[in-house]
Amino acid sequence: MTQKFRLTALDLGPEDRLEPEIEEYFAKCEAKLGFVPNVFRAYAFDNGKLKAFMLMSDDLMLGDSGLSKAEREMIAVAVSAVNHCHYCLTSHGAALRHRAHDPELGELVAQNYRAANLDRRQKAMLDFATKLTESPDKIEEADRATLRRAGFSDRDIWDIAAVASFYNMSNRMAAATDMKPNPEYHHMAREATRGPVKGSRPGGSIRASTPAAAPASPARRGRRGE
Amino acid sequence: MTQKFRLTALDLGPEDRLEPEIEEYFAKCEAKLGFVPNVFRAYAFDNGKLKAFMLMSDDLMLGDSGLSKAEREMIAVAVSAVNHCHYCLTSHGAALRHRAHDPELGELVAQNYRAANLDRRQKAMLDFATKLTESPDKIEEADRATLRRAGFSDRDIWDIAAVASFYNMSNRMAAATDMKPNPEYHHMAREATRGPVKGSRPGGSIRASTPAAAPASPARRGRRGE
Amino acid sequence: MTQKFRLTALDLGPEDRLEPEIEEYFAKCEAKLGFVPNVFRAYAFDNGKLKAFMLMSDDLMLGDSGLSKAEREMIAVAVSAVNHCHYCLTSHGAALRHRAHDPELGELVAQNYRAANLDRRQKAMLDFATKLTESPDKIEEADRATLRRAGFSDRDIWDIAAVASFYNMSNRMAAATDMKPNPEYHHMAREATRGPVKGSRPGGSIRASTPAAAPASPARRGRRGE
Amino acid sequence: MTQKFRLTALDLGPEDRLEPEIEEYFAKCEAKLGFVPNVFRAYAFDNGKLKAFMLMSDDLMLGDSGLSKAEREMIAVAVSAVNHCHYCLTSHGAALRHRAHDPELGELVAQNYRAANLDRRQKAMLDFATKLTESPDKIEEADRATLRRAGFSDRDIWDIAAVASFYNMSNRMAAATDMKPNPEYHHMAREATRGPVKGSRPGGSIRASTPAAAPASPARRGRRGE
Amino acid sequence: MTQKFRLTALDLGPEDRLEPEIEEYFAKCEAKLGFVPNVFRAYAFDNGKLKAFMLMSDDLMLGDSGLSKAEREMIAVAVSAVNHCHYCLTSHGAALRHRAHDPELGELVAQNYRAANLDRRQKAMLDFATKLTESPDKIEEADRATLRRAGFSDRDIWDIAAVASFYNMSNRMAAATDMKPNPEYHHMAREATRGPVKGSRPGGSIRASTPAAAPASPARRGRRGE
Amino acid sequence: MTQKFRLTALDLGPEDRLEPEIEEYFAKCEAKLGFVPNVFRAYAFDNGKLKAFMLMSDDLMLGDSGLSKAEREMIAVAVSAVNHCHYCLTSHGAALRHRAHDPELGELVAQNYRAANLDRRQKAMLDFATKLTESPDKIEEADRATLRRAGFSDRDIWDIAAVASFYNMSNRMAAATDMKPNPEYHHMAREATRGPVKGSRPGGSIRASTPAAAPASPARRGRRGE
Repeated sequence: MTQKFRLTALDLGPEDRLEPEIEEYFAKCEAKLGFVPNVFRAYAFDNGKLKAFMLMSDDLMLGDSGLSKAEREMIAVAVSAVNHCHYCLTSHGAALRHRAHDPELGELVAQNYRAANLDRRQKAMLDFATKLTESPDKIEEADRATLRRAGFSDRDIWDIAAVASFYNMSNRMAAATDMKPNPEYHHMAREATRGPVKGSRPGGSIRASTPAAAPASPARRGRRGE
Repeated sequence: MTQKFRLTALDLGPEDRLEPEIEEYFAKCEAKLGFVPNVFRAYAFDNGKLKAFMLMSDDLMLGDSGLSKAEREMIAVAVSAVNHCHYCLTSHGAALRHRAHDPELGELVAQNYRAANLDRRQKAMLDFATKLTESPDKIEEADRATLRRAGFSDRDIWDIAAVASFYNMSNRMAAATDMKPNPEYHHMAREATRGPVKGSRPGGSIRASTPAAAPASPARRGRRGE
Repeated sequence: MTQKFRLTALDLGPEDRLEPEIEEYFAKCEAKLGFVPNVFRAYAFDNGKLKAFMLMSDDLMLGDSGLSKAEREMIAVAVSAVNHCHYCLTSHGAALRHRAHDPELGELVAQNYRAANLDRRQKAMLDFATKLTESPDKIEEADRATLRRAGFSDRDIWDIAAVASFYNMSNRMAAATDMKPNPEYHHMAREATRGPVKGSRPGGSIRASTPAAAPASPARRGRRGE
Repeated sequence: MTQKFRLTALDLGPEDRLEPEIEEYFAKCEAKLGFVPNVFRAYAFDNGKLKAFMLMSDDLMLGDSGLSKAEREMIAVAVSAVNHCHYCLTSHGAALRHRAHDPELGELVAQNYRAANLDRRQKAMLDFATKLTESPDKIEEADRATLRRAGFSDRDIWDIAAVASFYNMSNRMAAATDMKPNPEYHHMAREATRGPVKGSRPGGSIRASTPAAAPASPARRGRRGE
Repeated sequence: MTQKFRLTALDLGPEDRLEPEIEEYFAKCEAKLGFVPNVFRAYAFDNGKLKAFMLMSDDLMLGDSGLSKAEREMIAVAVSAVNHCHYCLTSHGAALRHRAHDPELGELVAQNYRAANLDRRQKAMLDFATKLTESPDKIEEADRATLRRAGFSDRDIWDIAAVASFYNMSNRMAAATDMKPNPEYHHMAREATRGPVKGSRPGGSIRASTPAAAPASPARRGRRGE
Repeated sequence: MTQKFRLTALDLGPEDRLEPEIEEYFAKCEAKLGFVPNVFRAYAFDNGKLKAFMLMSDDLMLGDSGLSKAEREMIAVAVSAVNHCHYCLTSHGAALRHRAHDPELGELVAQNYRAANLDRRQKAMLDFATKLTESPDKIEEADRATLRRAGFSDRDIWDIAAVASFYNMSNRMAAATDMKPNPEYHHMAREATRGPVKGSRPGGSIRASTPAAAPASPARRGRRGE
């Protein structure tokens, strides 16, 4: 209970007894990241809600896509910057620093992607995500056409939209509940590891990293037959 | 393919072969509503994405909650009104007319809930959902305190936040893809059936309806052990 | 007095004794529509104010114009959607459903005209009306030029501006006074009558209807020598 | 024609042959002000439109009201400041300087009424007019209650709303057509004439002036039996 | 102290004993303008703050630049119009009327520069200043490119940015402290003196005036070796 | 020249030959920070502009004040967050992490200070700075009164306003010129050094640090007789 209070401003009662596959997933998080992301703990008062959230989150951020995982984190961070979301800027800021192997570029997207001199593809991607965040009612065919001209397929457009839309949901859950991120994120991936040559910054595109950042959720594994 | 084009502005390739439990769910939709909601068909190019969406949607709108199902539809519609979402105003406008047994009050929330003379509880609920939609970065403890004073528990606040946040996602998916609602919604529940006495309108609170509006999704049934 | 309270949130004292030509006009409304629109009753505490309002309203919506009557209703509804005006979305939503002989398309403009796949002319018309509503200070010659390229004459541009401006006034009167629409509007023109073939929707342009929707106001008749 | 072009950016064709009572009204303007306000000339391509506009304008600004004429000009100017309307800030700025007998206070409202240290009544009046201009959809009973507490009757509230709403229309007509004000306004009423003692500024309330600023329009005279 | 209260809403304690070069500067203001601008008196509670403000202000508005002094006043006024700043619209409105030798055009920029039919160069300059004021985070290379195409050098772009940015600071200082302008400004430069032929208005560009409007600040003289 | 291009998007020509006192100041920056902040190098094309900027910046951030240096950095960062300013979030983010001896709390203000559970004083301070940034025209006496009730003197209010206003200027200069921060900032003060006990976070107030973060500017030293 006391701990709950620290996760969010809401007292949601005792945690559900976690289902075995979620227990297993949490154990993998501990092993891999050193902690269970607080957003999962916040949802853990109800196994059903937690599983739905994990399933959607994992599909969007770790599933197959024409967008690299780093690009999906760029969208998450750019949307969270518009919404000034403390939780998501902290957690996905860390993820982007990690995925892009470029902590400074990661930071930059959290501040204002327009200062990043991105290539046309990624610029178009974040312009769309930002407009979709700020004024969804004004999206028109011309906006989709701009994405197509920048090299995105219709399936990619779906993914850009889906990631941007998902963080418009998550940002609001974090704001509504005053969700607190794990303090460990603060120190993660602050140093460049490998990737684009230092001198090429700022600007340049962000590539997908090879290794997965997190274990697949139980739900996800389920539907993939893993 | 041709049909896909009519669902959204995106050509997402052939539909996945639907998994048996989704086929079954779609069949129940046909039986109950006379059609499969287009949002499900739009997601049907990928079983995994569709299942995650259905699981979350069903949990929020049909699962246990201190909010009545009509109240959850009120939130969906009020959020969609801010975002001027054609798809959701059409489909959840119909759902709200049905749930509230009061087509005029349903319409009213789609236009501007402030004109509805709602009771204090529902007014506070929609004020919170609207602020969360328009300026999530400005939600503060005072906003949660207002909900508590209006009679909501912390668990209810989670649900208000979760429904409002979910439609901030869905509205954007519909806008980004130009998703078209099933034309059948237009005519649904235009006539008052039962519920509040006619003369009491406008104003008055909306109560939960007894009968479920839709079959539970396969994922949902799965986790409930049905 | 009691009845007054139901029209608006203001107690404006007893109605003026209506002038004979207004009495006659109201009688025609009753005969034709089955009721006197509440906006007229709300203004009826002062014959002078009522007459000025009726005169301007009738001139704009029923007078000669290069815009069809349905197009003028489209502008009224699109402006009212930006301003989330319950009264005007209800009354002019009904009028647009009637004028366009296409209830679904009518509904669509009330939600978000950008989802309607309108032809270039009507799209440009509503883009202008919306910009004029949202940021009148930013209208520039380029905006008028866009209308001209879409086929509008300068006289048409005046009419687009005048209708959009008028509903920016009316929406605010309704909001300021919490004006309630006649409940009859809710059910009007919900079924397609004639007009564009069903299958052609969504999209397609809206044509002017032949029959007038309302009797001309006394003032209007006066200056036309009727 | 050439002259028309100077009034607005639109070429509206030859002026209607003005009806006798309008000719007479224009003659009185010339006699009293030295010119016919350009807004009237802009509408003069159609007698009907001109008469409707004059009738409404005169009723609101010169008719009986619990608001002084200076107060009504304050509302006109405060609304026009929000909308950055060149035409109305010029013409009604001059009118307010004249009505308030205090050119500096007049200027101040055109810039930002919040800097004027108005008394509670006038501050509440302009707060309401500004909110109605900026976000009409958010007006609630609490806003009307604030006006009542500041001493306004329900009839006064109607008038505040009606004047603010009317200038939301007029500002947009001027913006849409690029209407140019008569240059004479620039120099009018730049010097204090009589009224509040100089030293009392800034702050202090604005009183109604005794003399009428303009002749009543023909339509208005008509309905008053003059 | 009493006098302090009239300058701003803050009681900042007794004035610093002014340093001799500031005393001298103030004396020149008195001689030239007939008064010391209140913004300088407001800052005079601290010699250091005053000197920094004067130094920056004088450099921007009176120093060498590819922008004429009138153009810099246009930027000051256009920015202050967006921010509805009473102090700066009054003082720089007067300065612009003076610099441009065209009181009506001066007034116009204070209302809405878009109504001024400026030449392409000055239009682009104010468009940039306005966007920088309203949404600095959205400035992109394309905005600078537009200025270059309109004939501005990179050094000019710095100056446009610097003046616009400075008034975004000054407007906020005036708003935060409720700073009152000297009443003398109201009457300054209301009559055209010399410059563009009367008939050429509206439109046309504003040229730099030859005579300096104010003595250089002590700090400025210092660094120029005067 | 090439190097210039990297500081900003503008080619401002060769640097001025720096005046001796500026050379000395730059040398101290190198000694103390390891680099000269890029904003100073960006202004260094003109000694006069650079000196004015340094003088004002140093006075505000390092001069005597009732606000601690950490509090002034909080304002700088909170304002820069609203404006999404890459340069200032990077440089003042680092300064705040340093001043507050709490890197996580520093980060938090850069994301959204409302998530920081600040004490009433600092919350009121940032609420004012944010409102002044977003809508300076709406600041009223009530806003100053709130600061006074939170314990601020009128002189403190001046300082809050001055720092917030200054960063509204600096943010816009950085945006207009695409100013790039020194990469060293990224790694500065990422580890907590001393200060509030770790466990007390989040929340708690930020205290002033004792050691000065930067050498005083030449201008500043000049006026202080150092």
